[in-house]
Amino acid sequence: MEHPRFLYDLEHCSIRRALDVLGEKWTLLVLREAFYGLSRFDDFARALGCGCGVLSARLKTLTEANILERREYKEPDQRARTEYRLTDKGRDLFPAILALSQWSERWMPPPEGPVARVLSRKSGRPVAVVSDRRSDGRIARDA
Amino acid sequence: MEHPRFLYDLEHCSIRRALDVLGEKWTLLVLREAFYGLSRFDDFARALGCGCGVLSARLKTLTEANILERREYKEPDQRARTEYRLTDKGRDLFPAILALSQWSERWMPPPEGPVARVLSRKSGRPVAVVSDRRSDGRIARDA
Repeated sequence: MEHPRFLYDLEHCSIRRALDVLGEKWTLLVLREAFYGLSRFDDFARALGCGCGVLSARLKTLTEANILERREYKEPDQRARTEYRLTDKGRDLFPAILALSQWSERWMPPPEGPVARVLSRKSGRPVAVVSDRRSDGRIARDA
Repeated sequence: MEHPRFLYDLEHCSIRRALDVLGEKWTLLVLREAFYGLSRFDDFARALGCGCGVLSARLKTLTEANILERREYKEPDQRARTEYRLTDKGRDLFPAILALSQWSERWMPPPEGPVARVLSRKSGRPVAVVSDRRSDGRIARDA
């Protein structure tokens, strides 16, 4: 008997479309570093310990997808350099990354405890990602 | 000046640990199909249109990580076969996958509208993944 799944064509499903951009470990780790505040190529390379070729390719993917944007900056007496900053589209990935992180902490807790915790700036309490069944479909973005 | 990011060693961070298992497009697409209810190798292969070698490798990764579990099933007059079912650990990935899907729909909406919508069984209203700043750190799992 055919599974009802095959009534649907999921070629253009939103998960696949997201993974077309993000479905690679280094891409998501570059984003992790952007959320930690890094913006410079050398800092990304040091933090991730990946090859410069891989990093260039991932930054290119993320810039082309408008998740990061390139900006020129110049410190006194130095040549102009490029930095990579999260766009609104990029910042909006935070709940997805936090959900992944919290799943990992629940099911594969690091032996020495969590490396980082996300706290509300207002209340100081931990921020959790939850499924909200009472929602009207709109997303509360500011945690 | 050194970025404060470098005060921390994120080698064991929960995002990286999650991506060690999941950071690959086909792995997450296999999970998508498991959430749609598929469990048989042939169905996964048909739904994803990926090579059998790739699919075998991804099912092995997910089984070893205890996200899927293998079970034997047997239909009348047929030989025993293996199916792959989500474990509790696997089902608990749903908020992360839904968050990724909703991000994709917000920022890269498919021209013909969403392929699928997630509705609450109780209320019939859309389920949203939100960051909850009032939380006590526990996760509400049943949406």
